[in-house]
Amino acid sequence: MTRTLYDLAAADGTRFSPYCWRVKLALAHKRLDYETVPWHFTEKAAIAASGQSKVPVLVDGARIVSDSQTIAAYLEQTYPNSPALFGDAQTQALTLFIKDWTETILHPAIAATVLGDIYRCLCPEDQPYFRETREAAFNRSIEDIDANRQQAEAHLYAMLKPLQKRLSAQTFIAGDSPSWADHLVFGALQWGKLVSATPLLAQDDSISIWMDKVLSTYNLQTV
Amino acid sequence: MTRTLYDLAAADGTRFSPYCWRVKLALAHKRLDYETVPWHFTEKAAIAASGQSKVPVLVDGARIVSDSQTIAAYLEQTYPNSPALFGDAQTQALTLFIKDWTETILHPAIAATVLGDIYRCLCPEDQPYFRETREAAFNRSIEDIDANRQQAEAHLYAMLKPLQKRLSAQTFIAGDSPSWADHLVFGALQWGKLVSATPLLAQDDSISIWMDKVLSTYNLQTV
Repeated sequence: MTRTLYDLAAADGTRFSPYCWRVKLALAHKRLDYETVPWHFTEKAAIAASGQSKVPVLVDGARIVSDSQTIAAYLEQTYPNSPALFGDAQTQALTLFIKDWTETILHPAIAATVLGDIYRCLCPEDQPYFRETREAAFNRSIEDIDANRQQAEAHLYAMLKPLQKRLSAQTFIAGDSPSWADHLVFGALQWGKLVSATPLLAQDDSISIWMDKVLSTYNLQTV
Repeated sequence: MTRTLYDLAAADGTRFSPYCWRVKLALAHKRLDYETVPWHFTEKAAIAASGQSKVPVLVDGARIVSDSQTIAAYLEQTYPNSPALFGDAQTQALTLFIKDWTETILHPAIAATVLGDIYRCLCPEDQPYFRETREAAFNRSIEDIDANRQQAEAHLYAMLKPLQKRLSAQTFIAGDSPSWADHLVFGALQWGKLVSATPLLAQDDSISIWMDKVLSTYNLQTV
């Protein structure tokens, strides 16, 4: 059986989606093989069978699953004998707070820093779509966002403080080994790292060290 | 045996310390009786036996314990038959991230909003100490901080987004019942609520509803 993940790709093939990274880590965590199909923002028809228009989309035999959290829950339920992604009910509740922190604080802070870099990474057919949707969401032009990069970076570093502090004291967000909480936050930072024209974090930053450890835990390549 | 908690008090007796609130919730969670002694910033001599100069200080029979996290760990270890404050290792790791988020993001955002209100709440002998230490920490005068309250409030609301979102979806941060993660965050919000001259949150805000539920879970009075 082939397991296929539709994975957002830049013009040079870089896979930068934070939501797709979560799922790739979850698949690695569950020790499940898969192939990826590079996908671009404007290729809505290719994933129409999922009933929605965004990646990640996982095709697992006859099942088509979208939305990273739904995919993670699907994997946990479908492959109960693989290593657990989630812990008990209390762990899951705390992890959902970390998910909300990632999506309401970290994602906007990273986007405000690298939105122009993402735009410039995209294949030409994706650029008008990206400009239109993101400029509407931010209510600012990409050029305006570019011009405010220094301020956005300072805000991002302020927002990263709790993560930086915690990862100076423990190896993974979930403790001695990574779990879904790590995958959620890693996706955000990996997205920023892969698209940013200049390094966002020093190599000896506790967050950089953690990112390398997440990848090496799953035998994934350090980018 | 008398169990005594040294508890920071304002001029009118209001107990507003975020760190003391954590411990009061932890004691209630463990179903342990205690008495509080109102304490003021300048009464360092009263807690000298703890070997440091800050509250909370818990005197439990012959044991004197300070620092809220150390007190929580002490209670968990000393009273293993009372309801657990912490969960398994993974839960504890995630809770420590929430602790760092509370202390590096939430506390500064609340302090920047209500620092002047705290100053005005204090008994006169505490005010010079508070002004000196806080103005040094913020590198601004209390009057300057007061003048920037509107901006500070806007920042605080932005920082509360993930909490607001999560508590719209689940009853407590730790899920169906509160635990140490809830106590850590509650302490911060209760501190802001008790000292602020104007309400920080609407009564129907998911955070306000959660705060009431935390108090009622432990049969503590809604303030």
